Amino acid sequence: MSDMIKVAVDAMGGDNAPAAIVKGAVDALQERDNLFVYLAGKEEAIRQELSKYSYPQERIQIVPASQVIETGEPPVNAIRGKKDSSLVVALGLVRKGEADAFVSAGSTGAVLVGGQVMVGKLKGVERAPLAPLIPTLKGSSLLIDCGANVDARSSHLVQFARMGSIYMENVMHIKNPRVALVNIGAEEEKGNALAKETYPLLKACEDINFIGNIEAREIPEGKADVIVCEAFVGNVILKLYEGVAGALMKKVKAGMMSTLRSKIGALLVKPALKKTLKDFDVSEYGGAPLLGLKGLVVKSHGSSDANEIKNSILQCIQFKEQKINEKISEHMNTKEERKDHGI
Amino acid sequence: MSDMIKVAVDAMGGDNAPAAIVKGAVDALQERDNLFVYLAGKEEAIRQELSKYSYPQERIQIVPASQVIETGEPPVNAIRGKKDSSLVVALGLVRKGEADAFVSAGSTGAVLVGGQVMVGKLKGVERAPLAPLIPTLKGSSLLIDCGANVDARSSHLVQFARMGSIYMENVMHIKNPRVALVNIGAEEEKGNALAKETYPLLKACEDINFIGNIEAREIPEGKADVIVCEAFVGNVILKLYEGVAGALMKKVKAGMMSTLRSKIGALLVKPALKKTLKDFDVSEYGGAPLLGLKGLVVKSHGSSDANEIKNSILQCIQFKEQKINEKISEHMNTKEERKDHGI
Repeated sequence: MSDMIKVAVDAMGGDNAPAAIVKGAVDALQERDNLFVYLAGKEEAIRQELSKYSYPQERIQIVPASQVIETGEPPVNAIRGKKDSSLVVALGLVRKGEADAFVSAGSTGAVLVGGQVMVGKLKGVERAPLAPLIPTLKGSSLLIDCGANVDARSSHLVQFARMGSIYMENVMHIKNPRVALVNIGAEEEKGNALAKETYPLLKACEDINFIGNIEAREIPEGKADVIVCEAFVGNVILKLYEGVAGALMKKVKAGMMSTLRSKIGALLVKPALKKTLKDFDVSEYGGAPLLGLKGLVVKSHGSSDANEIKNSILQCIQFKEQKINEKISEHMNTKEERKDHGI
Repeated sequence: MSDMIKVAVDAMGGDNAPAAIVKGAVDALQERDNLFVYLAGKEEAIRQELSKYSYPQERIQIVPASQVIETGEPPVNAIRGKKDSSLVVALGLVRKGEADAFVSAGSTGAVLVGGQVMVGKLKGVERAPLAPLIPTLKGSSLLIDCGANVDARSSHLVQFARMGSIYMENVMHIKNPRVALVNIGAEEEKGNALAKETYPLLKACEDINFIGNIEAREIPEGKADVIVCEAFVGNVILKLYEGVAGALMKKVKAGMMSTLRSKIGALLVKPALKKTLKDFDVSEYGGAPLLGLKGLVVKSHGSSDANEIKNSILQCIQFKEQKINEKISEHMNTKEERKDHGI
């Protein structure tokens, strides 16, 4: 048990819970021998799902939880009020050190609040950012921060840049990831007060590969690997990505269905198109880590299927094996800052 | 001449200047009898373009200007340094009251700075927002502000909402336009400090149809007619719209070209698809007004063709005929505010 990586899964969170969550966990267990999974939720329902599969019984444990946090509930009330919810119970395992990581496809707000309140931040981390991967023409980029804590300070953004860089280098294996600051122009002096204050700080960071400002137009082109912004802007970017892509695909479909000639063409184009467009679907990039916490908290997309849940769980193994939190802790205080603090 | 609406056009601004600009002006003159156009720029070049067309000579006048402001130039320096540029000369006509409106496809920064510095704001207007139309599944929405002045206050956003509402109602003929505030959640208490402060102010406005917060995902769906945000966020939205649409279309093309079967389908689909997608191209929505100035300043897309320039000029007629500035002036101080000021 001691070398096992233990992941606590919220079996009741998400549109397809518990079926997809349980299947995702079983699939992950079959891929990795050093994985142990806790499934928190309604025992009977989980047991019923588990009965459909054969799986290594010694590496899975049901942790009964009688309540479920719904998507619409105010997060703080939900975390405080539903002590026996699958989400709170699973997070509790990370809090007590019984699990290394937590995965949920449930309420984003509750995951964000629960992660910060129950698991707690690493020493030196000022704010824990939510960092989803977004698709680009060159692969994917980490958008950091898309969390719930708005009105960030420049010191927060510098930490986001460092954490995002460590994550992309060690979990996504991007060598020397390019870090860029979201701004409304390329020049250093451009932008709002926050951007102007943050730019020179990022430029002075020796432990990241800062390439300067990035305009929103350049994000989908894959110009940077780590896209740094405060959460309000990050939220707008993430949601507009989905919105524009969704609207445009409706237009493409409507165009294809508009004439007899185009309808025939559509039949021929469809399979190839579907395959290419899958790469550009935000929901395909399931697990967004909430970085900077004492354990790993991963928010999987609400509509996650078993495959996305499996990937989110496997991501936790990578995170633990690559000692991401140890690396984050090391980088939260730079050489200069340590000197300032007389260390 | 007295009932004529006079538009000063920067004949040298934009990727296709002066050819497309001159043609656009000629086309506009042929559509409307009460239009007079000043073409500011290099006399010889303009005269040569004009010689290609027959047009009402008594309603067009070349105003010689020897310099051109390039896109990359720092706007403030350009406006100050190039007094004989087509942009500055054309704006000067509005400043002196010789023209009612100004149209340019040149440097956005120079148009923004020049408009504010040379034309000046209407009394009561705190800040002049740039308000492009963006495509949605239901038509188009006005995104206000996408200008260069960031770090807005809530009182600015309230004025943007009023100006945008007047514009959409009177120029775009949307009855009782729906006004929404860009935010990261639907609830009133969501958002950053600016959004939280602005929401109740908008709710209290009796002269607009405020429908609450809008999440970025809902913008392309056409959930609101007037999308209110501060310029940093507006800039991100506008540019990400273009970026995601551009990247996705590359993906669609790549998908269509990936197999022999799909290539044949692509040939059949192409004409219908092209037509539908034209509705969703940001650059099709050429003229973005810079609202709240003493004259109308319209920034046309840098890549504007003659048709877009013509539309930008016709938009000025609409603006003047509908007495937009008079309406804006009326609404800059609400009943309550006038009472507060003891008026």
